[in-house]
Amino acid sequence: MADYKIYLNDSEIPRQWYNLAADLPTPMLPPVGPDGSLVPPQAWEPLFPKAIIEQEYSKERWIDIPDEVIQILYRWRPSPLRRAVHLEKALGTPARIWYKDESVSPAGSHKPNTAIPQAWYNKQEGTETLTTETGAGQWGSALSFAGSLLGINVKIFMVKISFDQKPFRKMLMEVWGGKCVPSPSQETNAGRNFLAMHPDTPGSLGMAISEAVEAAVTSPGGKTKYALGSVLNHVMLHQTIIGLEAKKQLAIAGVKNPDVVIGCAGGGSNFAGAAFPFIQEKINGANIDIIPVEPASCPTLTRGIFAYDYGDSAKMTPLMPMFTLGHEYVPAPIHAGGLRYHGMSPLVSQAVVEGLCRPMAIHQSECFAAALKWANTEGFIVAPESSHAVAAAIREANIAKEEGKAKDIFFCLSGHGNMDLLGYHKHMTGQLADYALPQEEIDFAEKVVQNHPKAEMRKSGRW
Amino acid sequence: MADYKIYLNDSEIPRQWYNLAADLPTPMLPPVGPDGSLVPPQAWEPLFPKAIIEQEYSKERWIDIPDEVIQILYRWRPSPLRRAVHLEKALGTPARIWYKDESVSPAGSHKPNTAIPQAWYNKQEGTETLTTETGAGQWGSALSFAGSLLGINVKIFMVKISFDQKPFRKMLMEVWGGKCVPSPSQETNAGRNFLAMHPDTPGSLGMAISEAVEAAVTSPGGKTKYALGSVLNHVMLHQTIIGLEAKKQLAIAGVKNPDVVIGCAGGGSNFAGAAFPFIQEKINGANIDIIPVEPASCPTLTRGIFAYDYGDSAKMTPLMPMFTLGHEYVPAPIHAGGLRYHGMSPLVSQAVVEGLCRPMAIHQSECFAAALKWANTEGFIVAPESSHAVAAAIREANIAKEEGKAKDIFFCLSGHGNMDLLGYHKHMTGQLADYALPQEEIDFAEKVVQNHPKAEMRKSGRW
Repeated sequence: MADYKIYLNDSEIPRQWYNLAADLPTPMLPPVGPDGSLVPPQAWEPLFPKAIIEQEYSKERWIDIPDEVIQILYRWRPSPLRRAVHLEKALGTPARIWYKDESVSPAGSHKPNTAIPQAWYNKQEGTETLTTETGAGQWGSALSFAGSLLGINVKIFMVKISFDQKPFRKMLMEVWGGKCVPSPSQETNAGRNFLAMHPDTPGSLGMAISEAVEAAVTSPGGKTKYALGSVLNHVMLHQTIIGLEAKKQLAIAGVKNPDVVIGCAGGGSNFAGAAFPFIQEKINGANIDIIPVEPASCPTLTRGIFAYDYGDSAKMTPLMPMFTLGHEYVPAPIHAGGLRYHGMSPLVSQAVVEGLCRPMAIHQSECFAAALKWANTEGFIVAPESSHAVAAAIREANIAKEEGKAKDIFFCLSGHGNMDLLGYHKHMTGQLADYALPQEEIDFAEKVVQNHPKAEMRKSGRW
Repeated sequence: MADYKIYLNDSEIPRQWYNLAADLPTPMLPPVGPDGSLVPPQAWEPLFPKAIIEQEYSKERWIDIPDEVIQILYRWRPSPLRRAVHLEKALGTPARIWYKDESVSPAGSHKPNTAIPQAWYNKQEGTETLTTETGAGQWGSALSFAGSLLGINVKIFMVKISFDQKPFRKMLMEVWGGKCVPSPSQETNAGRNFLAMHPDTPGSLGMAISEAVEAAVTSPGGKTKYALGSVLNHVMLHQTIIGLEAKKQLAIAGVKNPDVVIGCAGGGSNFAGAAFPFIQEKINGANIDIIPVEPASCPTLTRGIFAYDYGDSAKMTPLMPMFTLGHEYVPAPIHAGGLRYHGMSPLVSQAVVEGLCRPMAIHQSECFAAALKWANTEGFIVAPESSHAVAAAIREANIAKEEGKAKDIFFCLSGHGNMDLLGYHKHMTGQLADYALPQEEIDFAEKVVQNHPKAEMRKSGRW
């Protein structure tokens, strides 16, 4: 019988990342300040090392992965590509469902793919401490892991609702030496202000980013910098190793391009990592349906507006051109904490504007039902974030069944759900709520964004 | 550079299990009843399907793995062999440390290797429900997983201390349809008796086995059977797929036989699975140091006695020839719940009696320190059970360093610790206790065992 797991040897690991900015039909809009002025690269220097800033602005198509970074990634990369034959059978679909398993990393998700190079570049330039935020805890774990291997202290502001729901995530960060506090915290001006205004807030990634950025820029000596786990261009870049490996593996399986590519999308890094190498193929003429999947309760791409907005709630970051629900939006406390973000990667947003992707929003109840079907066919427990990709893959496999087409569906399994079983438990015991976004929230988001002084704003008109 | 991860293709999976009973220099002593009479195979029929009983008594060296079982194992097998180059470097040892990663299974441990064939044989013979016990929850999860895939109901009696310490393990069993209660419970006579005598007992595997066995044999209709996750011969048999794969992988790495083989040992299945194929080599003349590692607080092999004893606390099972601390022994509440068992697999025990293995006992503080070193070099989070093997591997690598010898050390990483972070947390915050076994406990164990009417008893004299 054929092998349904496709491994690559260490020597087959990609040696370069792929930069979608080089190939997008319309050049990316640059980040701007509150007055609409361009933000020059050096303005990021209090936050990031120079090598990272260079990647952030780069238009080069291929960027070398440092050999020392590859040596570290070898701990779990290349990651497996598998075919979900048991799910296919259960669905009775003629589709072939392929998935890239990013749960095999030590931190249990795709996040170390960028945590390692970010920590490595910081180390090269003398950074001693990194601050960051984390939603569900995947990113905070990943950066702690990277800090442990590279000898950098890591301080994490963790969204309060996840901090409370997921105590083991905090312990995991501690195992790798990370220091973790719930956000909003009393440790920053931004945190104290949020708490004064909303003492019972569940927190949000937007708030936690404000705190982590403040902690970095106010730290004396310049040896403390900030690391972001999603949204920015360099993060998308580092994650493309997922899709680049997958292309090699699919080729081994005899699949030149899949018909459908799916990734879950919060800030966009998992989707981007899996999909950008296929978006390149699509720009070059391939016929691929490329689907970022987001939670119905935080439908940035499907119901947000494309505009310049802040990356954080306290307006400490530059304004970025992206789909957004407004930087003041606090997403409902769904279990997919990693997808609770008001904005979206500018690169992913631009790809959506260009019509290169077809965003989809799914309620968490459908996602957990899909995860449960996965657990009882394929066997593995996926993260709530990843369950969005599983749910979309099931939808697409059912469409293929209706159409009678043997499509190749490829999705990215962003992480395992071993620390997210409470969500499964609530789903199975009928305690899980769905959260729809009322029209007033969208109207409010538009108002918030329109009020940015002088910030350019475009609406694509397609949503 | 060389690949430090060695995968096998699906087609290279072993097609037969290895039965050590065929090669042991002295034939195994049979199980007996309380009166010393032989327990015939058919006496097990209320508990097990006939195919399993046949394996339990088999003297055949090689036993075919059913093709349908292999198809299911393909979800995660063959599992990776990796070399711990980063730990080697941190230790400054000339030794090469190889490990088989059994954490990659859907249940996160080696336990599905036997759960799947056990459930499959039961399904073939019409079993509708399986009862079982679980310590840390690894086995209960694995059998729930197997039940889910094969359409069998699973009822689990979980040792109370672990049930309380590890709520997510219970949720994991539920995801796969398993029903889990803390043991001792009010659901069986055995459980009610334990609770009447010791209302505050943390429970033990011995008690939970009594409950699961009682629930199976008292169930009307004969469609409810029992499954054991360790100790018995057929369980050791199914686990040998680990060592058989490892031999192929080590051969690819150019290692004919490692110098040292290590596995953690509670009931014995992880150790047996990794080590038995190498014990065969040792019987045939190879020079291999083979080390089962147990907790110092439950030192069955290093301080127990070799005797006929019951497998459970309520004396419902036959008497088996094994190292034991006495069936009344309740191990201290260490975090390695899967190693809290008063007895030991008769096959492993016999191999120790024959001088084929060199047992080692290690305190949990040294084990957690080793696990922390592992997490901060190799990156992965290992289970508390597996940390015993890591600790022994570090000891042996340090000895190799002192000797200046480039030994090949092979150990089995039995499972991940993603649900066991509380133990790490306690270790790091100084809250972890070590438990030494006082001599009175050993004396008491001997008394308990000597009181078995007519049961044959042998002391090896080496402990």
